[in-house]
Amino acid sequence: MPAMSVEEVDAFLESVFPEMHQGGRIFSTDAITEEGARVSMVPQARHLRPGGTVSGPTLMTLVDIAAYVAVLGHRGPKALAVTTNLSINFLRRPPLGPLTCTARILKNGQKLVVLDAAVEGEGTPPVLVAHATATYAMPPDGKDA
Amino acid sequence: MPAMSVEEVDAFLESVFPEMHQGGRIFSTDAITEEGARVSMVPQARHLRPGGTVSGPTLMTLVDIAAYVAVLGHRGPKALAVTTNLSINFLRRPPLGPLTCTARILKNGQKLVVLDAAVEGEGTPPVLVAHATATYAMPPDGKDA
Amino acid sequence: MPAMSVEEVDAFLESVFPEMHQGGRIFSTDAITEEGARVSMVPQARHLRPGGTVSGPTLMTLVDIAAYVAVLGHRGPKALAVTTNLSINFLRRPPLGPLTCTARILKNGQKLVVLDAAVEGEGTPPVLVAHATATYAMPPDGKDA
Amino acid sequence: MPAMSVEEVDAFLESVFPEMHQGGRIFSTDAITEEGARVSMVPQARHLRPGGTVSGPTLMTLVDIAAYVAVLGHRGPKALAVTTNLSINFLRRPPLGPLTCTARILKNGQKLVVLDAAVEGEGTPPVLVAHATATYAMPPDGKDA
Repeated sequence: MPAMSVEEVDAFLESVFPEMHQGGRIFSTDAITEEGARVSMVPQARHLRPGGTVSGPTLMTLVDIAAYVAVLGHRGPKALAVTTNLSINFLRRPPLGPLTCTARILKNGQKLVVLDAAVEGEGTPPVLVAHATATYAMPPDGKDA
Repeated sequence: MPAMSVEEVDAFLESVFPEMHQGGRIFSTDAITEEGARVSMVPQARHLRPGGTVSGPTLMTLVDIAAYVAVLGHRGPKALAVTTNLSINFLRRPPLGPLTCTARILKNGQKLVVLDAAVEGEGTPPVLVAHATATYAMPPDGKDA
Repeated sequence: MPAMSVEEVDAFLESVFPEMHQGGRIFSTDAITEEGARVSMVPQARHLRPGGTVSGPTLMTLVDIAAYVAVLGHRGPKALAVTTNLSINFLRRPPLGPLTCTARILKNGQKLVVLDAAVEGEGTPPVLVAHATATYAMPPDGKDA
Repeated sequence: MPAMSVEEVDAFLESVFPEMHQGGRIFSTDAITEEGARVSMVPQARHLRPGGTVSGPTLMTLVDIAAYVAVLGHRGPKALAVTTNLSINFLRRPPLGPLTCTARILKNGQKLVVLDAAVEGEGTPPVLVAHATATYAMPPDGKDA
């Protein structure tokens, strides 16, 4: 069961990553779930590439935030949890409009948390835009509280 | 041997990714080499995380740009070359100051270009901050010129 | 919908990879599904590592076979489909007994097929042992039939 | 500087992985170097795929062994060091004959060791067949001796 609520995660991110919302509130925490978390974004002009598509680095940022939110939601406030690996497959050109990333914890280990993440755009059914896996190293117990 | 010079790559990027330099010229193309390319960046306040370290998404952006510059430099102007996979290991906390990414083409195939990339910070010897591999799918011949 | 049945896939593997079953029939094709395929194995003494656990290379072999079976099942007999990337996270020590790999096609593209795969051991619920992603490059149309 | 010699690594592997040499001595430890290790193999009929090429799982096994030898050589006898991630790009069809894998330690951390590895076949220059990265989790100090 989750260790933090959406409101607690948002307040924590606000305090440790104030620069995340620079230039406007792009990312929003939709839910902390039993499996992980869901974060969405509404791309702005500066995230676009030729042809109106969202850039790869923007998708990687969305994945990194969703995975971090899942780690926070399940492990509590750990600013020092660090990404050690992120691997992403870009599958389809994102449709215009909001994108949602669903991060799922595959292993919630003492030292390492491993997740996968699916980024989807709007459609019926939703369009699978990218799929990623990420690993976070957790700080030793007692550090960060 | 390279297909484009540093000046040609920069002019091309300027025309197809004007948003890349939004908020100031952060990234600069240092060299197109026989093996690939070298791109560096001077992190700004907005790229920093708690403790003054550069964020993961910023490092991934640097890798993606350096790999794309290597592809451009060796294959000519191909705006439609797309990243299909990027996998990165974050190794050490980046030191303050400029970061340089050296992208090296491992396979320059007709359909796929595979590269690895090392991100280093200043130090004696340089500090290996991250290591990545990336794959680009090339547009069919005749498209893009 | 699948392009080949379990029996057709098995007959095809038999004809192109007779060495797969050297030393006994270890791997069996359980199902070709709408999403991909399911392959299981019963580890033998030679797949074990200290402590009775299945070796990493054995798990990677299982993933590679399950992903290849999913590609065959959905694209028809393509001996020349080749793995271009395989990335695996080892999550938990496999329990004794049979292991099942469920491969799921994330993108069934003309040139590239991207899949993810979950390897599970017996348990209630099943034990998630490893998670992988794989990419296959498809031969040009007309080659292989 | 290395913690074990080639002879010590081989004797250790022999004692903990006797099954490694089942069916003949395929893999041989060429060197423990300042950067990592070098392991080579002479593929046998059972490692081949249609067209006489070495199978993907065989290449992954070679990478896993070379990386493990590098970890052993630099950290001493740690049977419980476990692979947590292995990601491999298959670049070119291997030429007939022996293959050599050069594993290089990128980060020799207390908890995690990160390496990259290049698999090359004979040629002038050598043929780069595959490139991989791997991560090993180290057992806590005091365990394993």
